[in-house]
Amino acid sequence: MRHIISILLQNEAGALARVAGLFAARGYNIDSLTVAATHDPQVSRLSLVLQGDEEVIDQIIKQSRKLVDVLEVADLTARLHLESELLIVKVRTVAGNGDALDACLYRHRAFPIDESGDIRTIQFAGPGSVVDSFLGELAAVSSLVELARSGTAALERGDAVLGAGI
Amino acid sequence: MRHIISILLQNEAGALARVAGLFAARGYNIDSLTVAATHDPQVSRLSLVLQGDEEVIDQIIKQSRKLVDVLEVADLTARLHLESELLIVKVRTVAGNGDALDACLYRHRAFPIDESGDIRTIQFAGPGSVVDSFLGELAAVSSLVELARSGTAALERGDAVLGAGI
Repeated sequence: MRHIISILLQNEAGALARVAGLFAARGYNIDSLTVAATHDPQVSRLSLVLQGDEEVIDQIIKQSRKLVDVLEVADLTARLHLESELLIVKVRTVAGNGDALDACLYRHRAFPIDESGDIRTIQFAGPGSVVDSFLGELAAVSSLVELARSGTAALERGDAVLGAGI
Repeated sequence: MRHIISILLQNEAGALARVAGLFAARGYNIDSLTVAATHDPQVSRLSLVLQGDEEVIDQIIKQSRKLVDVLEVADLTARLHLESELLIVKVRTVAGNGDALDACLYRHRAFPIDESGDIRTIQFAGPGSVVDSFLGELAAVSSLVELARSGTAALERGDAVLGAGI
């Protein structure tokens, strides 16, 4: 089962390595991970996506709570949550397909952030599965050159906050 | 100096922990990190932002090339590159400020992905400094509740690709 885990951690050298090490020690591969500062520069928020058995993930979460830099941990999977992922993708335009490419970008609210020769760089954001289907449509009207995905960032829905909030 | 480092790595359990451990061992704090699969599910792309001395970062990059799961490494800082970061932020609407909030979202091409009571969840993407200024404007017309940032994802500009590309 796919799990989305949110962790608040002290912004200290080594904090990320310790969290990543905990999952690696159990042989768990991380599908995606994002970590960046919250509104408080001393606190980072980490969003981690992985496939795993409920019981083992529960154990790892409990262990991660004991790590010195970890402030809060929550498995958002079973809660109402909102998730999104950023995609930056470079495509080579294909002669005769310019209008179809523009229509694809317009339909998906994606937009070019750069043009350089016949290469366009496009920015898009949405849930991971929506990013996948956008990429599929994009590949039908242009030639994909290179891409970077941010991995999933997520928040619980409504007024619930992890930790003290902002 | 701020560095953006791109790494292609085998999608193996422990690969991320080893890379993070290399930076932690030198006492380097990572400002942000994103990692997710590329178009090839066996290969992940990691984008890492940190502040550091040119010479020491160069050494760490050389060391990271020796890690078994690392396929390619590049410091994009000195090259023409495109970078962007995703923000998901929950705000509480403030009575009388509804129009100002809508205008702020429209001006920044940000859009609500959820509404639940007086809480709106907003999605935005742009370079980190642009995310910062958007958050500043947003805080002036609503009350920030909770946020998740993806960290910076980046690609070199033009037709250069890291590794074999797609």
